[in-house]
Amino acid sequence: MKTTTLLIFSLLFSLNLFGQQENKQIVRLAKLVIDSAQLESYNAFLKDEIEASVSLEPGVLTLYAVAEKDRPSHITILEIYADEEAYRKHIQTPHFIKYKNGTRDMIRSLELIDTTPLVPGMKIK
Amino acid sequence: MKTTTLLIFSLLFSLNLFGQQENKQIVRLAKLVIDSAQLESYNAFLKDEIEASVSLEPGVLTLYAVAEKDRPSHITILEIYADEEAYRKHIQTPHFIKYKNGTRDMIRSLELIDTTPLVPGMKIK
Repeated sequence: MKTTTLLIFSLLFSLNLFGQQENKQIVRLAKLVIDSAQLESYNAFLKDEIEASVSLEPGVLTLYAVAEKDRPSHITILEIYADEEAYRKHIQTPHFIKYKNGTRDMIRSLELIDTTPLVPGMKIK
Repeated sequence: MKTTTLLIFSLLFSLNLFGQQENKQIVRLAKLVIDSAQLESYNAFLKDEIEASVSLEPGVLTLYAVAEKDRPSHITILEIYADEEAYRKHIQTPHFIKYKNGTRDMIRSLELIDTTPLVPGMKIK
């Protein structure tokens, strides 16, 4: 009886841990409108920042940036961080600070939208 | 001299092919607003459709769906298809048709936005 109870508790505990792990991810949409006259320069800054972040930071799971074909200055970034801590570290990196300072005057608007993924753990093949 | 010319042409040709391959991907944002009263049912349909598409169709590279935390009925899907042909096949699959017919009356608005990825080939770790 004792063993069964222990087993049930262990199971509940591991399920809970698993659930928490899933929930720890930060999944966000960043929506930006860029000054058209500075778009090329902005895109170069963003590309550098994304490539550095994804290759150097294990906790930056993706930064998938797209520009609308009909309005190339309208950019959306799907940002996935492993957890709060990974995000906090990210915004203190030299490459992020370089991007932030370098693009300040190019960004017309920035909206950060916290989201919940429908299928956590979804990848890109 | 002839060999050099041939080499240059081969190089240009392969660069062009490479460029075309990158450009063949279809990368799109789908923005949906769902009838709040039917959101749970809609999400179940969408989850089934995404899981079937990504596991059964090699040309569906991702369907990353997120719901806004503050407005859960506002859904954005990052859709990546290998090429036009993969997309055409996708919308003829039984699982897509089931989703389309099953959710028709749940969708308040649907906007499909063609996009260009800033870093083609970006993955999710």
